[in-house]
Amino acid sequence: MKKQPEEDVPEPRRRTGGRSARVQAAVLGATMDELKEHGYDGFSVAAVAARSGVHETSIYRRWKSRDGLILEATFALFAQDIPIPDRGSLREDLVNLLSGAVRQLSSPIGWAATQFAMALPRESEMTQEVRQQWAKRFASVREVFDRASLRGEWPAGKNPQDIIESLVGAVYLRVLHLREPVTAAHLKRLVDAVLPVAVDRRREPARTAP
Amino acid sequence: MKKQPEEDVPEPRRRTGGRSARVQAAVLGATMDELKEHGYDGFSVAAVAARSGVHETSIYRRWKSRDGLILEATFALFAQDIPIPDRGSLREDLVNLLSGAVRQLSSPIGWAATQFAMALPRESEMTQEVRQQWAKRFASVREVFDRASLRGEWPAGKNPQDIIESLVGAVYLRVLHLREPVTAAHLKRLVDAVLPVAVDRRREPARTAP
Repeated sequence: MKKQPEEDVPEPRRRTGGRSARVQAAVLGATMDELKEHGYDGFSVAAVAARSGVHETSIYRRWKSRDGLILEATFALFAQDIPIPDRGSLREDLVNLLSGAVRQLSSPIGWAATQFAMALPRESEMTQEVRQQWAKRFASVREVFDRASLRGEWPAGKNPQDIIESLVGAVYLRVLHLREPVTAAHLKRLVDAVLPVAVDRRREPARTAP
Repeated sequence: MKKQPEEDVPEPRRRTGGRSARVQAAVLGATMDELKEHGYDGFSVAAVAARSGVHETSIYRRWKSRDGLILEATFALFAQDIPIPDRGSLREDLVNLLSGAVRQLSSPIGWAATQFAMALPRESEMTQEVRQQWAKRFASVREVFDRASLRGEWPAGKNPQDIIESLVGAVYLRVLHLREPVTAAHLKRLVDAVLPVAVDRRREPARTAP
């Protein structure tokens, strides 16, 4: 794994030392592999322990539960498979990100991951963890808007969260709930429909980033 | 039941005669009551048959499967509980609709309904039915934009589908996936963020409908 999510949002209960980080990466990597091979129903922490060489009790000490481990691995997988783009244009970056989300949600593992997250009880000890994982992901996506601000494509200081949630929400709705296909042309039209008109005008003279 | 959804989108396989419509309404009503009382896991077509006085084989002839019956009842319930508003302002109508969706999704029955729909296999004989139900619902929601066009709040002839899916998607994302609360203030901000700026300017002189 290239990226260790814990480094973005350090939490008191996690040690960020070298060995701890390696152990965490090994467990998350093994979890993703197990999920890919056996799906959610066939998933067991024991198999992750065997695969990663990390003792089961250490896994439970760090992740608390099977669900907690699956959840973090799921988000790590999304972060890994949908890297934050930097194509020199807010529109292109957003279309790229949303294409990645469609691809991921439509894959067997992404589909299963989302079904798993959806099936969590409405309020449980996992809810905070779900929120933290999404917050971390959204913080990464906001980089796209930060760079757009520097290019004059997005008003500096304007919070893009509602726009992000609308775009991601539209894609989730179509794939998961409407069960309708999402094409590249659809995503371009969606981004054009949702981004403020002011952004549209600013885009034209925008220079391309290196 | 006040509304019989079949009358909006007549389908060849459904008879729209008086008796047939009454039978359908009775079965859908009984299905909703059963779902409210026993949830999805405790749901049985036999109980619906007993409650509605319609023979089980007739129910299966019309709805094909337990899932098909649950699906149609779920959408009928949403249509019944979230009526299409007409408050004389596109923004107010949208905030009202989205508030209804939040309320519905957050209710035990709405939550269970969505979990049920989410758990359907990605492609199955139900997929077409899911799409038809959503299409029917979106056709109702578009009435709000048709009326807005007449008031000059929305460009005549402009397809609002992407905007509708973005708004509904943002709400679904927050409630079902992010597990974050959605307040009235949030919905107003969301609608303002997503509706084109041009609409914003047109809104000011809009008159209030009776």
